[in-house]
Amino acid sequence: MVLLNANYRLTVTLHDIDAAGVMFFAQVFRYAHDVYEQWMTQQGFSLAQIVREQQFALPLVHASADYHAPLRHGDVVDVILSIAELKNSSFTLQYQFVPVAGQSVNSINQVNPPAVTVTTVHVCIHQQSGKKRALPNELVNVFNGGR
Amino acid sequence: MVLLNANYRLTVTLHDIDAAGVMFFAQVFRYAHDVYEQWMTQQGFSLAQIVREQQFALPLVHASADYHAPLRHGDVVDVILSIAELKNSSFTLQYQFVPVAGQSVNSINQVNPPAVTVTTVHVCIHQQSGKKRALPNELVNVFNGGR
Amino acid sequence: MVLLNANYRLTVTLHDIDAAGVMFFAQVFRYAHDVYEQWMTQQGFSLAQIVREQQFALPLVHASADYHAPLRHGDVVDVILSIAELKNSSFTLQYQFVPVAGQSVNSINQVNPPAVTVTTVHVCIHQQSGKKRALPNELVNVFNGGR
Amino acid sequence: MVLLNANYRLTVTLHDIDAAGVMFFAQVFRYAHDVYEQWMTQQGFSLAQIVREQQFALPLVHASADYHAPLRHGDVVDVILSIAELKNSSFTLQYQFVPVAGQSVNSINQVNPPAVTVTTVHVCIHQQSGKKRALPNELVNVFNGGR
Repeated sequence: MVLLNANYRLTVTLHDIDAAGVMFFAQVFRYAHDVYEQWMTQQGFSLAQIVREQQFALPLVHASADYHAPLRHGDVVDVILSIAELKNSSFTLQYQFVPVAGQSVNSINQVNPPAVTVTTVHVCIHQQSGKKRALPNELVNVFNGGR
Repeated sequence: MVLLNANYRLTVTLHDIDAAGVMFFAQVFRYAHDVYEQWMTQQGFSLAQIVREQQFALPLVHASADYHAPLRHGDVVDVILSIAELKNSSFTLQYQFVPVAGQSVNSINQVNPPAVTVTTVHVCIHQQSGKKRALPNELVNVFNGGR
Repeated sequence: MVLLNANYRLTVTLHDIDAAGVMFFAQVFRYAHDVYEQWMTQQGFSLAQIVREQQFALPLVHASADYHAPLRHGDVVDVILSIAELKNSSFTLQYQFVPVAGQSVNSINQVNPPAVTVTTVHVCIHQQSGKKRALPNELVNVFNGGR
Repeated sequence: MVLLNANYRLTVTLHDIDAAGVMFFAQVFRYAHDVYEQWMTQQGFSLAQIVREQQFALPLVHASADYHAPLRHGDVVDVILSIAELKNSSFTLQYQFVPVAGQSVNSINQVNPPAVTVTTVHVCIHQQSGKKRALPNELVNVFNGGR
């Protein structure tokens, strides 16, 4: 598990909440993907450019979430991104949604346990054929912290 | 204003509701578009096919909603679709979100007033150039009830 | 695995699709929950009523999805609901998203394999205290097909 | 029209895009509300707190958007917030979605015209009765720039 030195802070919005008064479970997947997209862009891998260039695509083959505690309207949450597994043609990302307790939480050593943990598995395919291919070296380097 | 004989029933879901306990205002635009897409498909104008064939596109240039009464979790609502204006290269649709009071509401003569009224204005453009063009005759016929 | 005799048909909408041209992965969780809510209502367990009565709640503690094939704009999909596990205070639902190939698919024996499989685990808690409790007998009966 | 000195930058995400390859029209309403909620919080009016305290609510009675140019995946957009009208018990906000052309756009004098303009009208009501009431003085002061 390599921490990607990526930390994104979000505030639970009015419309994230459902009729039961807590964040609707599916919202964490949208937030996780937004963190993924933002991190990739910061590493030089704009998803918009990847889609446009049509050399490869990184579709999800698996997504899961474990909900440990409810998130409520106005909660401030840090999303801590790490890479859980790196294979020849796929990678697994983990996102910990850690509530911020009154003060800034900028390290993996924060006291708060995550309220939600999300995992996504992406596979690398040729955009046209849809067939599996090896991850581009530049992307492997990024995951290895080689940048 | 021509009633398009289209009536779609929806039930307000758990996740349509926001932290204030009522349907989040932006949800009506998604529902309106789903009704539009379903109606178009039933008339032989699948949006998927239109996008694929790349002859024309029908982007929105305007959308608005007036909220008369809140919608709550579990409310059953009929969406009544009508065409408010038909021009050479654009059309205006109106969607009335009418709560169903204990029984079926299948006509424009229902007792309940709409909780929300949505209006969308679509313009017809060449898919490639983005320039305005006349609406296809077949689509004009559909709006005129000529089918 | 008990098939709940529940079958819901959906059509992939314009806005379900993302910039990569396929259904955004997180949408299946919204659809799964809508199927769950509709099925529960049909069994006499309106989620709106459950929330209002505040006797118990059924929050998710886990959700996952496996993506076997992409879903595209206009695809017609049957969602087949079954109960994978029933415990004293929790239950696990499975949703198979099966593309409909030109004709109706109404049985578990359909030819098409699922494009996506979703799993959700719900735990029963006291609404006020948040503490785990046994599932109501009436709900257990429903899951056992006792209705 | 009073500029509220509020400027929020967003990047159009993969899932904001629809099957037609541009941002789905309804997304701007979600973004507008997120800007509204963030701005209110920064002025000391947390919507979470307002909902919790149940003294007043600020539901929307009208929302509209004019789409001047499509927004595409990866576009960077500044949302410029201003107050268009302030009445005894209601206020009208305007949000200009201005694409950022290669460089920072931090003033109302930017060269780019807005791609989308959104308007929302909020009315102040008693949370319990739902009846119209005057806006709290503190909120009027904020809109008048008195802070």
